[in-house]
Amino acid sequence: MKLWEKSSQTENIIEKFTVGNDRELDLQLATADVIGSLAHTKMLHTIGLLSLSELESIHKELKKLYREINDGNFEIEEGVEDIHSQVELILTQRIGDAGKKIHSGRSRNDQVLVDLKIFFRSEIEKIVNNSKLLFDQLNNLSEEYKDVLIPGYTHLQIAMPSSFGLWFGAYAESLIDDLEMMLAAWKVSNKNPLGSAAGYGSSFPLNRTLTTELLGFDGLNYNVVYAQMGRGKTERIIAQGISSIAATLAKFSMDVCLYINQNFGFISFPDELTTGSSIMPHKKNPDVFELIRSRCNKIQALPNEIAMMTTNLPSGYHRDLQLLKENLFSAFESLNECLLISKYMLEHIIIKDNILDDSKYDYLFSVEVVNNEVLNGVPFREAYKNIGAAIESGTFQPIRAVKHTHEGSIGNLCHKEIREDFTQVYNSFNFEKVHTAIENLVK
Amino acid sequence: MKLWEKSSQTENIIEKFTVGNDRELDLQLATADVIGSLAHTKMLHTIGLLSLSELESIHKELKKLYREINDGNFEIEEGVEDIHSQVELILTQRIGDAGKKIHSGRSRNDQVLVDLKIFFRSEIEKIVNNSKLLFDQLNNLSEEYKDVLIPGYTHLQIAMPSSFGLWFGAYAESLIDDLEMMLAAWKVSNKNPLGSAAGYGSSFPLNRTLTTELLGFDGLNYNVVYAQMGRGKTERIIAQGISSIAATLAKFSMDVCLYINQNFGFISFPDELTTGSSIMPHKKNPDVFELIRSRCNKIQALPNEIAMMTTNLPSGYHRDLQLLKENLFSAFESLNECLLISKYMLEHIIIKDNILDDSKYDYLFSVEVVNNEVLNGVPFREAYKNIGAAIESGTFQPIRAVKHTHEGSIGNLCHKEIREDFTQVYNSFNFEKVHTAIENLVK
Amino acid sequence: MKLWEKSSQTENIIEKFTVGNDRELDLQLATADVIGSLAHTKMLHTIGLLSLSELESIHKELKKLYREINDGNFEIEEGVEDIHSQVELILTQRIGDAGKKIHSGRSRNDQVLVDLKIFFRSEIEKIVNNSKLLFDQLNNLSEEYKDVLIPGYTHLQIAMPSSFGLWFGAYAESLIDDLEMMLAAWKVSNKNPLGSAAGYGSSFPLNRTLTTELLGFDGLNYNVVYAQMGRGKTERIIAQGISSIAATLAKFSMDVCLYINQNFGFISFPDELTTGSSIMPHKKNPDVFELIRSRCNKIQALPNEIAMMTTNLPSGYHRDLQLLKENLFSAFESLNECLLISKYMLEHIIIKDNILDDSKYDYLFSVEVVNNEVLNGVPFREAYKNIGAAIESGTFQPIRAVKHTHEGSIGNLCHKEIREDFTQVYNSFNFEKVHTAIENLVK
Amino acid sequence: MKLWEKSSQTENIIEKFTVGNDRELDLQLATADVIGSLAHTKMLHTIGLLSLSELESIHKELKKLYREINDGNFEIEEGVEDIHSQVELILTQRIGDAGKKIHSGRSRNDQVLVDLKIFFRSEIEKIVNNSKLLFDQLNNLSEEYKDVLIPGYTHLQIAMPSSFGLWFGAYAESLIDDLEMMLAAWKVSNKNPLGSAAGYGSSFPLNRTLTTELLGFDGLNYNVVYAQMGRGKTERIIAQGISSIAATLAKFSMDVCLYINQNFGFISFPDELTTGSSIMPHKKNPDVFELIRSRCNKIQALPNEIAMMTTNLPSGYHRDLQLLKENLFSAFESLNECLLISKYMLEHIIIKDNILDDSKYDYLFSVEVVNNEVLNGVPFREAYKNIGAAIESGTFQPIRAVKHTHEGSIGNLCHKEIREDFTQVYNSFNFEKVHTAIENLVK
Repeated sequence: MKLWEKSSQTENIIEKFTVGNDRELDLQLATADVIGSLAHTKMLHTIGLLSLSELESIHKELKKLYREINDGNFEIEEGVEDIHSQVELILTQRIGDAGKKIHSGRSRNDQVLVDLKIFFRSEIEKIVNNSKLLFDQLNNLSEEYKDVLIPGYTHLQIAMPSSFGLWFGAYAESLIDDLEMMLAAWKVSNKNPLGSAAGYGSSFPLNRTLTTELLGFDGLNYNVVYAQMGRGKTERIIAQGISSIAATLAKFSMDVCLYINQNFGFISFPDELTTGSSIMPHKKNPDVFELIRSRCNKIQALPNEIAMMTTNLPSGYHRDLQLLKENLFSAFESLNECLLISKYMLEHIIIKDNILDDSKYDYLFSVEVVNNEVLNGVPFREAYKNIGAAIESGTFQPIRAVKHTHEGSIGNLCHKEIREDFTQVYNSFNFEKVHTAIENLVK
Repeated sequence: MKLWEKSSQTENIIEKFTVGNDRELDLQLATADVIGSLAHTKMLHTIGLLSLSELESIHKELKKLYREINDGNFEIEEGVEDIHSQVELILTQRIGDAGKKIHSGRSRNDQVLVDLKIFFRSEIEKIVNNSKLLFDQLNNLSEEYKDVLIPGYTHLQIAMPSSFGLWFGAYAESLIDDLEMMLAAWKVSNKNPLGSAAGYGSSFPLNRTLTTELLGFDGLNYNVVYAQMGRGKTERIIAQGISSIAATLAKFSMDVCLYINQNFGFISFPDELTTGSSIMPHKKNPDVFELIRSRCNKIQALPNEIAMMTTNLPSGYHRDLQLLKENLFSAFESLNECLLISKYMLEHIIIKDNILDDSKYDYLFSVEVVNNEVLNGVPFREAYKNIGAAIESGTFQPIRAVKHTHEGSIGNLCHKEIREDFTQVYNSFNFEKVHTAIENLVK
Repeated sequence: MKLWEKSSQTENIIEKFTVGNDRELDLQLATADVIGSLAHTKMLHTIGLLSLSELESIHKELKKLYREINDGNFEIEEGVEDIHSQVELILTQRIGDAGKKIHSGRSRNDQVLVDLKIFFRSEIEKIVNNSKLLFDQLNNLSEEYKDVLIPGYTHLQIAMPSSFGLWFGAYAESLIDDLEMMLAAWKVSNKNPLGSAAGYGSSFPLNRTLTTELLGFDGLNYNVVYAQMGRGKTERIIAQGISSIAATLAKFSMDVCLYINQNFGFISFPDELTTGSSIMPHKKNPDVFELIRSRCNKIQALPNEIAMMTTNLPSGYHRDLQLLKENLFSAFESLNECLLISKYMLEHIIIKDNILDDSKYDYLFSVEVVNNEVLNGVPFREAYKNIGAAIESGTFQPIRAVKHTHEGSIGNLCHKEIREDFTQVYNSFNFEKVHTAIENLVK
Repeated sequence: MKLWEKSSQTENIIEKFTVGNDRELDLQLATADVIGSLAHTKMLHTIGLLSLSELESIHKELKKLYREINDGNFEIEEGVEDIHSQVELILTQRIGDAGKKIHSGRSRNDQVLVDLKIFFRSEIEKIVNNSKLLFDQLNNLSEEYKDVLIPGYTHLQIAMPSSFGLWFGAYAESLIDDLEMMLAAWKVSNKNPLGSAAGYGSSFPLNRTLTTELLGFDGLNYNVVYAQMGRGKTERIIAQGISSIAATLAKFSMDVCLYINQNFGFISFPDELTTGSSIMPHKKNPDVFELIRSRCNKIQALPNEIAMMTTNLPSGYHRDLQLLKENLFSAFESLNECLLISKYMLEHIIIKDNILDDSKYDYLFSVEVVNNEVLNGVPFREAYKNIGAAIESGTFQPIRAVKHTHEGSIGNLCHKEIREDFTQVYNSFNFEKVHTAIENLVK
């Protein structure tokens, strides 16, 4: 029949448009989907919706599938819409009707919600751990080069003495505050939405507290309408978290590009880590840091993109949300690469000595001279005037010894305290609790 | 001389452009500036830079000034550049040379940094407290109307039964996750940058740990370069925090505008709270919620604005940062107004009964019927098919009783648990510690 | 040697990071790269840098390569960095040393600049042509359903009579203004950057006017520093252009999702164009329009992303710019798909008749009644009061006949004028001039 | 009565929230509102809705009011909601009932639409004219300093010779493309929405073609639903237009801040145009350019803000749109100030001579030497190798004479052609047509 033919033709166009590249992205959710089903079915058994033998049969196959996915022996077949259908399909092929029952008391809405939260937890963990590697590297460099002075700039004008100790250490400490944002993202992610079904709950007597424990979540998204509302919101908050780390890396990269520039010339990298020009051997293009900067600025724009895609949508699920995966998932990978290559580059950074010997940096020390007078009892504003006059008359004598002693200054970088602060935030994540729960499920 | 005339004329143009509306915005930092100076001078005395009599004289006048500011008897005079200069000027006029000494060991850079952090703390507190008021109101409404059913939508299509209990409760619970973001913003704000001077520390033997305690901060921005780097970053993180609350309010407003629309007609407000049209008495324009939505979407764009204004700036102070105040300061006020007027509107909301009696909502109950079959042992996918056939053949009979019992569902809204979660985040702020510290300083 | 081993290992990491997915994206620039080289070499011959036989040999192979690319027989080999190197490599393999000479007087910087501009022109053309298809479809629907009335809303409140004629026609006309933005993007793109070399020009006596003519550009980016500055800027402006069309489509999709909702119920689509639920046959989820909305909101966020990635970069090339391709290139494809599937969906839209017969729409006609009084001489403000009183007392009688006659109103949709306006903007692009130039080069 | 008291109290809260700072912003629309009413009433007379004597009386008073506004003798009184009500109120006070009739055939929706378009036209004109002033200044500097060489950077690495001629000229030419965006904004703004009433037209036989001519618009927003849809869209497009100029200024400011930095030291400004530090006389903080950069980056974020506030709103008026004024109106003023102060600063810029004499710039000339070989017949890639080897072996001899001759290069800046391009875009605005129309209305 003509109408039928037309309609089936139609379906192809529509399906291609609606599925998009979801199949490829969903592959990243595969283990999370299996984990979610392990917990869900365990709970279904306790409320009498699965017999013990059904449960055992399902769990045996799900655990097998889990290993297959980890071994890379898994794909979402052409014609299968998403990861949830693929898992259910395989299960039904392997164990028959019991496989169909794993969907009881769920909808694809809360299934993808819980998959995403499980996935986000592991992505947050990766990023936090890579941030820790970079933190350690920066802190070590800060310690190693604590005595090498560089000019400090305000308004990009030569201002006061700084040091590589301060410079590296500043970016290490920056990651602590970034982790506070990641911790908020973690807390928002680490709540169980499973059981919210299509966003309005289920008439089954689900035990959501049990799945919460099984999956190692810290708590529940109780209200089922809110659980659904978490889609898009969780993504935006995570994006804000990773954009904070990205902002730190982008700023650091800008500094690196400036300091490697020949007019500054404070640092360099071995030839094999920069991209030169066959014609201009003096050129050591800092492509890696330019690309870190660019990638990280892209990540900085991501929370806004997510907000733009979700704002003014009334409550309840909308298909719009599907498209949040693409740029967010790739941002995780991109940021992890940036963190690791930053650390790698810093393992090879070359520090120039005696930078401040150049006479153009003499005025860096004027404030020291002023403060010296103040310590001798001259009021601050008057000491300012005296030295200013000396500089104008050309009689100014820099005191090149920098004797800063207070907390966080050149002579007292507080590495120990900064490490403690980092460790405290880091430990707040309590990744172990999640590991234990997941291992209990899949073992 | 002509050149001089021109140059002084020049200065006017330049000064007008550079000062901008800073004088007006700085007024909001006045108490914070006095508080910062009280702590700084107390510390200066302990390191021998102020005599006891100088300290007493300074403190007496600063506390007087604090009261004058609170009483509204304070302004930044024409020709005085900013709040820091104004405070120092008044002090010097009143107590002479000792007044000039309060600037020792500080630069305007760390002075504004600490002022901002003190100010941000009190703004965060206001927003968190107003969020609490709205949370309570939403939770109460959720309890009060827990039995009034409304349609639940997915894809904006009639889907499953929901309730006012779920709807109000969802937005209450949403504020919990929003507060996690505010808590991150609080933690980032609640660290002491004072003593970082122009971003490179000071040769004075400052005791930054002491000012940290005096000002009630939880810790230090240790590294002085990082302390300076916090400018812009703190603002962006706070903006992300408040944008999370804003997103919740904007979404709620969208729902309200839809539900008050005559095609939905679920809720209404008294005439005096809507703006009607003299000609169309049926019109109850929800202007308040349209404006909440618009204001909150504006706030959602703010983190991006701050990122755009700060990205790719190398480390060290830049004058660019001055302009971050304008939209951020007004966003605090705007969001507080939105929170309070939302609560006010909700105190007067009118709920329509018996919404689901309309036959167009019959199909809402199809999933209930399916689940009923499943509970009787039919595999999920098969029950789906049976009811689908019944609907197509017109023999479908809705079961209008909604018997959801699991956590967070219509019949089990978990208000107690949600309140506990809210209280736990709320208490993490520990505003009391800050109050005590400030009171000790100004009393 | 250890160092060597380490360095070669290093290079792999660095190269992987810096090349990214550039090879894949560059494939889209392949024909543009060949076209650029055809023009460049022709010019090189006129200034004596290529002999006639070299030119002929190069052109013969480039044209062959052009056909191979169009036939899909082309790829960028593993280990070859980008499209420019690949083309040069093939050429040198096929014709020897003359192949190497095509790079004389160019750098990769201006080569990619001209490639991008040639590519952007053809992408703009596709989008403009697809916009034309949608414009025609919308205009036709506006004409076809000009007499079918629907409610008009303000504040999402029932306000005054509207019609499908107005609704479809509004979005048609919207595309005219969107094309004005595309035209600006076209003009900015349609200028020749070739000859700017690395952004500082060349000591060769290049004839840039000649390549401008050969490539069909409307003019030159004269200043070579500005030519380089066009990278990033051109992308941002094009993104702003396409975001304007995207905003139109997103808004239209929001309307569609609302109108297909059962509380409105103005329109529907055949089952095979919506995604239903096997259990809820009443559901006709408008997934296609939800995804159009989401894709288009994503595109609306794109100009901001580009601005974030380029702002505060000093003049001169930075590697950051490389990353602008990814989201922009995919946005072209995404928007074209949205335009085409919108048209496709609209070919099958089902319009509901007699919508306004529902009594809840009676008040739509109150303004008509007021105006009727005014036409009889009553001052406007007084007529307002009279009808208002009638409505309140329940004596209001709607006049259901809508007799709007002025330009652009229900009864006078001005399709002819709107078509003329569209055609005028459309013709301003003058795509023919470009076609002719390119055909002359490749034939 | 208590209820009444409460309700009136309520109204105050609601009114305060809904009016916001609209009264203040509307003041900027005052002349536009009078102009719109002059045209509207003239048209009303031609369709018989105003007698000749009524028209004359109204016009006499409106013209008087126009002069009063221009003289600064006008305000929106407390308690009057907006500019439209204020004008009508004054008119009615002065000439009685005829004053009330000016609203016939209009709603406040199309009245504010036409006011905004008239206002936007004049704001666009100001910005375009100030851009012209800056263009001229940049072009003049480019001509004046065309022979002063500076280093050209790629990847922020010393690359090839550039010149102040190229640098200033690049930013001049940048403004041409920016004006293409402004032209698109102008065309979108320069269409008449008057007569669209509340977005659904009017039953009066309005002559919209007549008001289009009277107001000097180039055409109509025909479709009344589209006319209303222009609100928000016009604002976004204008914001994109001005953000293009802002991006040019921000980039230029970044260059200035870098070039004034002591490590570069290419330019400086007189002391009175920079903000020094009383203690560090070497400091010449480029505050003006830092603030231009910051203001312009803020403007770059504006289109996104507007998109965030308007996306996903269904068609028809929403009160949300009111809030678009605040940041857009202030952006006009801010950008104009940036353009004028940029020009002012450039009138006093101090250019350093002989920059390239520093030996660190020797390698800038390597490409020249390569090209020299190529001109002598050596294949490009081989010449590259030869010079590379010379540099590595230390035998490289720079050729310091830069003999670039092609269009847009150091030796051939094409000022004439660039001026012609600018003039062509500038003339496309045809501001004269608008002036003539307005003058005819108000004279």
